[in-house]
Amino acid sequence: MFLRLEHLGIAVKDLAAVNDLYGSLFATGPYKQEEVVSEHVKTSFFQLGEAKVEFLEATHPDSAIAKHIEKRGEGLHHVAFEVDDIRAEMERLKFQGFQLLNDEPKMGADNKLVCFLHPKGTNSVLVELCQAIR
Amino acid sequence: MFLRLEHLGIAVKDLAAVNDLYGSLFATGPYKQEEVVSEHVKTSFFQLGEAKVEFLEATHPDSAIAKHIEKRGEGLHHVAFEVDDIRAEMERLKFQGFQLLNDEPKMGADNKLVCFLHPKGTNSVLVELCQAIR
Repeated sequence: MFLRLEHLGIAVKDLAAVNDLYGSLFATGPYKQEEVVSEHVKTSFFQLGEAKVEFLEATHPDSAIAKHIEKRGEGLHHVAFEVDDIRAEMERLKFQGFQLLNDEPKMGADNKLVCFLHPKGTNSVLVELCQAIR
Repeated sequence: MFLRLEHLGIAVKDLAAVNDLYGSLFATGPYKQEEVVSEHVKTSFFQLGEAKVEFLEATHPDSAIAKHIEKRGEGLHHVAFEVDDIRAEMERLKFQGFQLLNDEPKMGADNKLVCFLHPKGTNSVLVELCQAIR
């Protein structure tokens, strides 16, 4: 079951500058910064009500974020929805014809299991499912 | 004051098809559909926890959505944050150097006053401020 819009991911070139700029915009700083070594990104999170905004800077030219910025520039990158049972949702969506980018949930930022759907099947939107690890 | 991530806007070519597809993804249909004549768009809204996902289809080639799709294809388009006092926030942000796309709040979908910030000043993210009309 889809529970809520958990976060919105935004690809940026300079996380420190973005923390300042969006700190001014939101009038509050990021509540967390975290590097996800396996994904070659460093991230910062702002809390806006129930949902978060996650900024992602590539730490390696091979990271998906670096490639996204090379192809499309900075900006909105993905949207993540919290689900109650990620494996059940992955099964359900696969059965309905959605294409998953990973067959098993993988570790994402913010202590979560995550799975991405192929944007070709979702109107060019990169959709992430996530479930907090208890 | 920024209260919460209110909605995420997604530009699409065929709203009816998208309502079906995302209805399958979310396992629930849109709770509202609405045409905003002044903006040349028709929209549908899905509720995901506290936040909404808004899909936008152009009803005229001059609409911002049609131009966005022509230039960048379908996909993530804007992010809207609810504020408690849109005029006060517009003043504050102008003073801080953010560029507003409208000098006065204008009527948006979903019975809201809205104001957009120029994406040049926000890492290519189209940011919307919105305030529910009481």
